[in-house]
Amino acid sequence: VAADPPATIAWRDGTLVLLDQTQLPGTECYVECRDVATLVGAIERLAVRGAPALGIVGAYGVALALAEATRTGVDVRELTERVAAARPTAVNLRSGVERAWRAATTGGEDAAAAALQAAQDLAAEDAAASTAMARHGLALIPDGARVLTHCNTGALVSGGGGTAFAVIAAAHTAGRVRHLWVDETRPLLQGARLTAYEARRCGIPHSVLPDSAAASLFAAGQVDVVLVGADRVCADGSVANKVGTYSLAVLAHHHAVPFVVVAPTTTIDVATATGADVVIEQRAAGEVTRVGGVDLAPPGTAAYNPAFDITPPALVTALVTERGVASPVDLESVRRIARDP
Amino acid sequence: VAADPPATIAWRDGTLVLLDQTQLPGTECYVECRDVATLVGAIERLAVRGAPALGIVGAYGVALALAEATRTGVDVRELTERVAAARPTAVNLRSGVERAWRAATTGGEDAAAAALQAAQDLAAEDAAASTAMARHGLALIPDGARVLTHCNTGALVSGGGGTAFAVIAAAHTAGRVRHLWVDETRPLLQGARLTAYEARRCGIPHSVLPDSAAASLFAAGQVDVVLVGADRVCADGSVANKVGTYSLAVLAHHHAVPFVVVAPTTTIDVATATGADVVIEQRAAGEVTRVGGVDLAPPGTAAYNPAFDITPPALVTALVTERGVASPVDLESVRRIARDP
Repeated sequence: VAADPPATIAWRDGTLVLLDQTQLPGTECYVECRDVATLVGAIERLAVRGAPALGIVGAYGVALALAEATRTGVDVRELTERVAAARPTAVNLRSGVERAWRAATTGGEDAAAAALQAAQDLAAEDAAASTAMARHGLALIPDGARVLTHCNTGALVSGGGGTAFAVIAAAHTAGRVRHLWVDETRPLLQGARLTAYEARRCGIPHSVLPDSAAASLFAAGQVDVVLVGADRVCADGSVANKVGTYSLAVLAHHHAVPFVVVAPTTTIDVATATGADVVIEQRAAGEVTRVGGVDLAPPGTAAYNPAFDITPPALVTALVTERGVASPVDLESVRRIARDP
Repeated sequence: VAADPPATIAWRDGTLVLLDQTQLPGTECYVECRDVATLVGAIERLAVRGAPALGIVGAYGVALALAEATRTGVDVRELTERVAAARPTAVNLRSGVERAWRAATTGGEDAAAAALQAAQDLAAEDAAASTAMARHGLALIPDGARVLTHCNTGALVSGGGGTAFAVIAAAHTAGRVRHLWVDETRPLLQGARLTAYEARRCGIPHSVLPDSAAASLFAAGQVDVVLVGADRVCADGSVANKVGTYSLAVLAHHHAVPFVVVAPTTTIDVATATGADVVIEQRAAGEVTRVGGVDLAPPGTAAYNPAFDITPPALVTALVTERGVASPVDLESVRRIARDP
């Protein structure tokens, strides 16, 4: 068994220290954020990523912004807005910022300490949510399951064990996972780089595959359930998640395989009515046309590179949250599970 | 306008000279095959690839085998079988070998000259077939079409303009192509590397995309028709083609977009009843887990890496051949079009 994984997010002496996920699995190195610009850069280039983790760093970002405003005189709201807007599709980032800001402005004299406490509370709640999602999700995993997953949803994105990967890890512990199929998740390869790394740490038998090869696994009857995370769940149950998720949802539907989304209720955004209302972040062509300094296409080739896609609720078999499972996924079931308990 | 493309396949003084497609688009270099082992190596590592091109090099391979048998005393049938078996899924490779072998054994005194002539005939027929497929396929492309394609199917795979790409080029010349969406085609990136290179040479407006992003283009109504090639068409109309083709077929079906396969009748194999009878070549994990010397996954990670997948005929809107269009695609229409005219 491997050593404990390195901490993804830590706060030390006024500095937010982030494991640089762009360097994994080859290198474990860290980004030290002492100002908002460094944090925004780290978020934009995906050194830190994943819905719950973005909520936590959003909250820490408020502590950074408060210190920077004091130091430089820049308006603190301008700084917190830069953090909140760094990735438009991920709802947790903005809500993490808002929560820490509320704490800072209502928490008495030491605003920075209140923001820090909010970030730490968020991380602790997220860890508890991971545990609860794993428990609820486990009921959906049959014995001997061949599980297909996309992108990365484990400890690297969370204050705890993550979202979809937390369910997979729990199912593995319960002896139910025959094999984990890991979509490589182009263009940034979070599956090949990060999920394979986490699966190895957990001792889960796994194979990486080109995203487009998943279809032939479905056709061969080699997939019993699909488990993915979410960057935003809309009021109607539409799911914004890593590009490629929708493709798997259509394939799962075509082959009558359950398609399960695992996300904490902090990822549900009832203010966004449907998938059509989600702003999809378009990213640079170079992410597609170059890998590790190697040109994959003729220089100057244009690329279509949306970070996310939208899966309509009719294709989602179940939504697993820390409060339980919504199934079928629709306006009513999402409203019920999103409401404070 | 770019200079004429380099010749993909040429014969010079007893040597088969192949453009090394693994080095494109960065470098135009050549593999010189003077013996069967070099040719088989070039086929296996995809220096030469694509159904029609494999038929042509299969025929040239017989000329190489005859010379090598004379030189070394190795059994010539053993040598030709090595060529024919280098890629099990591609039907054209074996049929090209068989055609040249028949010519060599029935062509009078100079067997090698007869094999060479068979290869040159095959290349000329393939060029004529490309022209005819382009003409028949053009009728299926609407004005202002946004075309999605997968892998590489142009001049690099053919004695002429190719298969699906020949139709796209003809539609572009006719002013009908608004945009060409190019699936990058993991793991070996034939779309990003080769189709983008050919699209640029032809002046077709195009963008490369991660294979898994195609789904969101369909959802956004940005795809009017899908055009792909084939490595083998079975008697029932099942299509074996580059992995990821089946995924697009399911997506096209789900979004009611026409899914068109373009292949010469030499690619139809009536001896293979259904897709279940096709041997799918499984390739090395390293193709998925490394790119250009860069590790994409933890060293030692297993990969699922089939070269091809199977699309059932019910998902194929039309099969375009040099003899015309089969639609719907089924046992009867395939038999009719495969029969000698």
